[in-house]
Amino acid sequence: MHNLKLLAEHICSGKRRAIAKGITLAESQRSEDQQQSRELQSLIRHKNGRAIRIGISGIPGAGKSSLIECFGSWLLKRKPEMKIAVLAIDPSSPVHGGSLLGDKTRMETLSVHPRAFIRPSPGGGGRGGVSRYCRESLAILDAAGYQLIFVETIGAGQAEYQVAAVTDLFILMQVPCTGDALQGMKKGALELADIILIHKADGMLRSAAQEMASDFSSTKHSPQKGSQERPVLLVSSEEGRGLKELLESMERLIRDREQSGELQEKRNHQLIQWLHDEIRDQFWDNFQRTTQDSPAYKEQLEAILASQISPGEAATALLHQIPRTES
Amino acid sequence: MHNLKLLAEHICSGKRRAIAKGITLAESQRSEDQQQSRELQSLIRHKNGRAIRIGISGIPGAGKSSLIECFGSWLLKRKPEMKIAVLAIDPSSPVHGGSLLGDKTRMETLSVHPRAFIRPSPGGGGRGGVSRYCRESLAILDAAGYQLIFVETIGAGQAEYQVAAVTDLFILMQVPCTGDALQGMKKGALELADIILIHKADGMLRSAAQEMASDFSSTKHSPQKGSQERPVLLVSSEEGRGLKELLESMERLIRDREQSGELQEKRNHQLIQWLHDEIRDQFWDNFQRTTQDSPAYKEQLEAILASQISPGEAATALLHQIPRTES
Repeated sequence: MHNLKLLAEHICSGKRRAIAKGITLAESQRSEDQQQSRELQSLIRHKNGRAIRIGISGIPGAGKSSLIECFGSWLLKRKPEMKIAVLAIDPSSPVHGGSLLGDKTRMETLSVHPRAFIRPSPGGGGRGGVSRYCRESLAILDAAGYQLIFVETIGAGQAEYQVAAVTDLFILMQVPCTGDALQGMKKGALELADIILIHKADGMLRSAAQEMASDFSSTKHSPQKGSQERPVLLVSSEEGRGLKELLESMERLIRDREQSGELQEKRNHQLIQWLHDEIRDQFWDNFQRTTQDSPAYKEQLEAILASQISPGEAATALLHQIPRTES
Repeated sequence: MHNLKLLAEHICSGKRRAIAKGITLAESQRSEDQQQSRELQSLIRHKNGRAIRIGISGIPGAGKSSLIECFGSWLLKRKPEMKIAVLAIDPSSPVHGGSLLGDKTRMETLSVHPRAFIRPSPGGGGRGGVSRYCRESLAILDAAGYQLIFVETIGAGQAEYQVAAVTDLFILMQVPCTGDALQGMKKGALELADIILIHKADGMLRSAAQEMASDFSSTKHSPQKGSQERPVLLVSSEEGRGLKELLESMERLIRDREQSGELQEKRNHQLIQWLHDEIRDQFWDNFQRTTQDSPAYKEQLEAILASQISPGEAATALLHQIPRTES
């Protein structure tokens, strides 16, 4: 048991150990921890809504960590009041729950910087994991006063979608060396992207990067949501170039969307999604607690395994038998 | 309304239009269609459990379609009784629901072969989509007499996990040209893989492919589940090489697992997962039908948007108010 009120206070005053503890609670698969994490969310709610949350995605090797290290360090130097956090999500290790990104002490400057907080997070195994704990972790970092939070994820499909669903801006990183990148490029990620960032635009790859940028800027790949123009930026972490342009693009996008109301609308939509996920999660918790060990459940399961009934029919039968949640 | 009994009969006698219609029903997002699809599953249940289902995953450009085209055509020639189906899943287009793989008429031989059935499928947007309709589509193809069904998916993270969760064997495709592939390789996909297939092992890439194969065979990357050795195979669709070895590996793995009971155990486990997903899906359908337009829901939602209550608290309150499912 944690003293949740104290934990919330410490989080809100920016204590690193409390933040880490809160995130561990959010990431936990245990039902009691999830309950506590929910309560913690209520206690820090009043300090939420100030951080700008940036999703960054790209294939393995695209250099997401290098970019965040480089851009983050540059920002911290430039803005002495700023606090930056990084959630590095690895959705790709569902079997053992381990985190590939956990090995990374690659963000050498940021990881020891007093105004930065880096957190590698496991994928949360299976269903809807990323959005769930990611939201709660973001709320904790927001309450702790981190004004800019990066959520880094290995790209493709579901993970990107889930990260985009809990952030304000979504940056898709591309590297010029990935052959037929556009052709093979995931359409979904492209549709989600607010900014396309072509990384490693240096050395031998510079001209390839420029070519790629003009490909992305062409009408064929223009954004499909709204009429806002989508920036395509060339960046080099190696040479530290393109950082200012990236910051300006981010700031402009956020400012425009604040003014148009789009940002608030997006955040409201995300809160609705959060509510829906909570409803489903709590229902399932309740089912597991009350019904999964019942004779009725075992009976249906045996009938399924004996091919006497389909899973759909069995589910319908069981849903009639679930007791209501207790307070 | 479909005449479901007739549809089921036609599916079971292998009629292509009925199969396509059944899969369309399985893929539909509409609540009525999903209900019908569930009923259809009951009607074809007695013809299930015979197909071998093979998941194939790899990064865009790895040549999944080429391999299936090449391997499938070769198999159909070799085994005159065999029927092969392909579900090409694209989990990467959540925003508009369109399918990138839909453009593919790349499997030129298979797509017109009388003993093959190719189906490009959209990603099913958001939560747990792939597993849900994929299962039902697989059951339809199984009932229709396709003995070997490939489920092709663009690799990473959740999608791979979901495809592995509904198939008997999972093949991970690698291409030797992807630079620091091992380092950047997703650990999760590696853990899921029953066979590692190094594709494009031809021409200039042959030696790189061989090197990669020996890397994968080294102890560092040996399988973590069970003691069975995991085949690492070199294949070239271009030159049609390695196909026999692939077939033998697949057959040996299936035979061993049938004998050890592992295959049945895996399928039982998948049925349990299916039941659980059905329970969650039906609950959610019911919630949307009964509660989402209620005054109580609107009240809670407004409180969330006004920062008076957290989504977790609101969900708990709402879960007390959901009526039971009606039969």
